[in-house]
Amino acid sequence: MTKVIADMSMSIDGFIADAADGVDELFEWYGNGDVETATAHPNITFPTSVPSADRLRQALNDVGALVVGRRLFDLTNGWGGRHPMGVPVFVVTHRAAPDWLAPDAPFVFVHDGVEAAVAAARQAAGDRLVGVASASITQQCLRLGLLDELHVNLVPVLLGTGVRWFEKVPGPVWAHDPQILEGTRVTRLVFPLDRSR
Amino acid sequence: MTKVIADMSMSIDGFIADAADGVDELFEWYGNGDVETATAHPNITFPTSVPSADRLRQALNDVGALVVGRRLFDLTNGWGGRHPMGVPVFVVTHRAAPDWLAPDAPFVFVHDGVEAAVAAARQAAGDRLVGVASASITQQCLRLGLLDELHVNLVPVLLGTGVRWFEKVPGPVWAHDPQILEGTRVTRLVFPLDRSR
Repeated sequence: MTKVIADMSMSIDGFIADAADGVDELFEWYGNGDVETATAHPNITFPTSVPSADRLRQALNDVGALVVGRRLFDLTNGWGGRHPMGVPVFVVTHRAAPDWLAPDAPFVFVHDGVEAAVAAARQAAGDRLVGVASASITQQCLRLGLLDELHVNLVPVLLGTGVRWFEKVPGPVWAHDPQILEGTRVTRLVFPLDRSR
Repeated sequence: MTKVIADMSMSIDGFIADAADGVDELFEWYGNGDVETATAHPNITFPTSVPSADRLRQALNDVGALVVGRRLFDLTNGWGGRHPMGVPVFVVTHRAAPDWLAPDAPFVFVHDGVEAAVAAARQAAGDRLVGVASASITQQCLRLGLLDELHVNLVPVLLGTGVRWFEKVPGPVWAHDPQILEGTRVTRLVFPLDRSR
């Protein structure tokens, strides 16, 4: 069964963006080393530390589809029409695709909610993972019981304010102890959710 | 120089207590093993996993004084007049000590704020650490630049609601990458704060 994972970079105090939607502090680890990881986007590579490069290569290999919110799509200008992970992106939205997006771009605009988007992404991902990369979609997946793992890229900073990853989650949601990968300016914690509790 | 550390058990979503001030989920690791750690309180021992026992013994050895808020003191009924860590406890409060507290109990009620309480605790701790164990005191110490390390006992649960450890912290406050100790139902992350950034 295809696993659904939520994977984000988070400050110690739980923010995944600052108050102006900026991610400079949280994404520092994507560019603070000298091991280059190529992406599906010809102009984007990530020069990181060795453990972070290993982890990025693994993600690029393992993830088969993404589910994102419309807010993130708009904030990133739809990643210029091509997501660096090179997989189909399912955008949960009530609005139509923007005019500038090429009709054959690998984005699917899903108008009937998160559950439908995750189902479509599972189909597209095949045996690979479905990745969730926005706070509101993570929260909705938690409410719907659709999430298998949380991948927390914990960045050693307190932002003080901004956008929280977890708000209005119906708790408690239990996880197992994490797998841990130490990087440079990031600690990766992979928590499998525990549905037996 | 005496270090000031804030040490709490926190959920993945940043809570140090649930909405009713309960800590059952977050303190599970204090009682989920069979290695007994004695405390200064004759009726309190902690049966934990091996790594958690090591970490508790180290804390009991290293911490020389505590600074807490009045809310925590009241919630715990002043730990029955004797804190399990067996060190002087400086309580930041505008109110007087409760009548039931023995005059020679190792609690000092500090009426002129967090900075004064931390200074007095430093004095009492000598070469040992000053521990901060409440959310509001942690936040005030961060605002005043009084904190040297954050000791995050990260518990694999999302509580969804409750008391957050970090609110209204003026960010960004940078830390160094953490030292990590893996326990059972708890991952200990020790972040030295980085005042050079």
